[in-house]
Amino acid sequence: MKKLKVAIAGLGTVGKSVYNILSDDAHSLKQKHNVEFEVIAASARTKKSFLKDNVKFYENAVDMANNKDIDIIIEVIGGNDIAKDLIIKSISNKKHFITANKALLAEYGYEIAKIADDNNVNIGFEASTVGALPIIKSFKNNFAAVNDIKEFYGILNGTCNFILTKMAEEGKEFSNVLKEAQDKGYAESDPTFDIKGIDAGHKLAILSSIAHGSKPNFKDQYIEGIDNIEINDIKLASELGYKIKLLGIYKSQEKPFQAVYPALIDMKSMIAKVDNTFNTVVTNCSNAGWSMLVGHGAGGMITASAIVADLVDIANDHNSKIFLHNANSLKDTKISDISQRNGSYMIRIEIKKENIAKDRELFKFIFEDKFEINKSAYLTQEDKVVAGFILHNIKESDIISFISSIKHNNIINAKFIRVEDLEF
Amino acid sequence: MKKLKVAIAGLGTVGKSVYNILSDDAHSLKQKHNVEFEVIAASARTKKSFLKDNVKFYENAVDMANNKDIDIIIEVIGGNDIAKDLIIKSISNKKHFITANKALLAEYGYEIAKIADDNNVNIGFEASTVGALPIIKSFKNNFAAVNDIKEFYGILNGTCNFILTKMAEEGKEFSNVLKEAQDKGYAESDPTFDIKGIDAGHKLAILSSIAHGSKPNFKDQYIEGIDNIEINDIKLASELGYKIKLLGIYKSQEKPFQAVYPALIDMKSMIAKVDNTFNTVVTNCSNAGWSMLVGHGAGGMITASAIVADLVDIANDHNSKIFLHNANSLKDTKISDISQRNGSYMIRIEIKKENIAKDRELFKFIFEDKFEINKSAYLTQEDKVVAGFILHNIKESDIISFISSIKHNNIINAKFIRVEDLEF
Repeated sequence: MKKLKVAIAGLGTVGKSVYNILSDDAHSLKQKHNVEFEVIAASARTKKSFLKDNVKFYENAVDMANNKDIDIIIEVIGGNDIAKDLIIKSISNKKHFITANKALLAEYGYEIAKIADDNNVNIGFEASTVGALPIIKSFKNNFAAVNDIKEFYGILNGTCNFILTKMAEEGKEFSNVLKEAQDKGYAESDPTFDIKGIDAGHKLAILSSIAHGSKPNFKDQYIEGIDNIEINDIKLASELGYKIKLLGIYKSQEKPFQAVYPALIDMKSMIAKVDNTFNTVVTNCSNAGWSMLVGHGAGGMITASAIVADLVDIANDHNSKIFLHNANSLKDTKISDISQRNGSYMIRIEIKKENIAKDRELFKFIFEDKFEINKSAYLTQEDKVVAGFILHNIKESDIISFISSIKHNNIINAKFIRVEDLEF
Repeated sequence: MKKLKVAIAGLGTVGKSVYNILSDDAHSLKQKHNVEFEVIAASARTKKSFLKDNVKFYENAVDMANNKDIDIIIEVIGGNDIAKDLIIKSISNKKHFITANKALLAEYGYEIAKIADDNNVNIGFEASTVGALPIIKSFKNNFAAVNDIKEFYGILNGTCNFILTKMAEEGKEFSNVLKEAQDKGYAESDPTFDIKGIDAGHKLAILSSIAHGSKPNFKDQYIEGIDNIEINDIKLASELGYKIKLLGIYKSQEKPFQAVYPALIDMKSMIAKVDNTFNTVVTNCSNAGWSMLVGHGAGGMITASAIVADLVDIANDHNSKIFLHNANSLKDTKISDISQRNGSYMIRIEIKKENIAKDRELFKFIFEDKFEINKSAYLTQEDKVVAGFILHNIKESDIISFISSIKHNNIINAKFIRVEDLEF
């Protein structure tokens, strides 16, 4: 029977759930994996009453890195300050490390990977990305392990997916639904990281690194959140046969495409059914073809389940390089510029009702035959008409020039949202 | 650099694809995993010209089990005779073994697991079940590793899914579409194992064993194929808002529910979108909640990709017990009897047109208020009316008695198909 001594940094919902699983399921874990996990240390801002007396409590998590008895440290603090200190000191001291911290790995992953390699320790981070699914392991041990990953895309943030789902279902504006999400605990009191697409961007950077064999490149990614999506965008999309989802997209090419943005997707597609707080990753592998994985991204027990699975892996010596390749062989990669995107777009134009000729000739006039309009839809509202136009096979830079060129007319507002034509 | 010597038993589409991947991707496998795989032996009915001269050819695969140079044997012969001999001799001789053979593991898994445990060898069988997805590893290293699996269900056979999809899309009868599937290579010339549900039953037995910690129990499963599904069933289902899919279903309970049958599922559900040759497994875990994995089940490169992923696992010493638990602790499990199923059903009744009163009173007469009808649909065809009735919350044994009780009337035909109300 193997025995591993574990420390937990952070005792919020996730930390507590890990503590509970390790205690409640100790017998079953022993029976299945022939291993005993003993939580011997924990840290948090304040000591928690649920900790048994034999658990040494630390006010400063980083001090745990110097406790020689600890084999594995689990970090569920989040953020880039204490957590960064803790991981670097822990793995430098040859402790295995498990984290749910996507920001840390997306922004400092290369530095961390080098130290992990030098010290021959394992870093488990299944909990960082779609906790309910073994997506990191699927990438490292299957998809990217024996395939070239041609592309993948996904819904990587449950908060945004919940907000977009509720907006569509209930016809409410973004700000109202955000409030509801906060009340239900699906969104943080400071929701910036979620709604601005940063959290999804962190996950995209991690998965792309494994897919492409490159250093995680978070900072060069184009990232657009959902905070500018209005209910009229969703209504127009729906009229045109689409739903709006926040997607993270990676495409393998000389300069990989790697971006997060809200996009119109066919409402009949499978991914359009991934609603509420569910996440998904759809992957196209050179040998294994297309696959889709759907599961919850976060939640105490869900994230804890992924962490305990990583514990079992480490106990079983299922070690692997953090981003699949040796840190030294991870490539520097330039991400392609979003303005080079060639694809489909919805242009949304609002015009005061009084300026609209009955037959909507004005819209034709605006487009001046510059683009071929594939589909259009109109919402007539109090004093304005909101129109949506689907254009195919356009370069993003041309759309941007066009939008800025028409801003001088009788137009109240003009914007675009990308359209993705997806396999699933 | 680790070097592993590999033998391939069976050189059809899959065997050849494995051989090609190991040769074409040798550099990338070396770079990612620091391992070299050398194919030093192979067997098939006849020697293949694509084998390099340094590959020792065996006419009898079982002889490879005695070749002391071989570290791992890959079996893609199929069936229960040579393959069974080969696996037992190979693992007894302490060779690791990789197989795509679901029949072997579903029917003799316990015997094989005991020998594997005794000899401390690893058996990879990711290729046996939904080859494009790491479903076996997801169950062994994540879902069942750290959760109780409450239930799972799935579309486990691509041939049946292709046939049912085409029947629905093109309104053709089963036999015509089967012929088309055979012409396209999606169905074997002897399609029995697929269309009778046996292949899906093998996969269900394997996954259920991991989920439940029990000896694989193929033989006690209720298994019904799709060969009795008629186009009228599909048309009625569609009128009532359903699609028909062949499902494998496991539910954890004192006597686990474990069965394969065609079922009506809500046409708006996600699983209803899993069409053509795609497979899926939907799992409900105690901690991680619901998840869904979708991918192709078979095909040369797809199956080969799963086999090579298993090779990498074995090379990295990612060993684990074949069905997660030690063979000695696998439970004997009694599966609950299908007649005890309580759920929803579609009853299909055909009556000669001349016997039907205008207002369809006859149908009411047939049911004699025995059951509450939730929904009904009628197809009027040349000389008959085909009617479908959805009934909820009924015991299967009561449905069976009812169907046999009404066979004496003016009824040409009466049958039932189960209805499943699914989460995804």
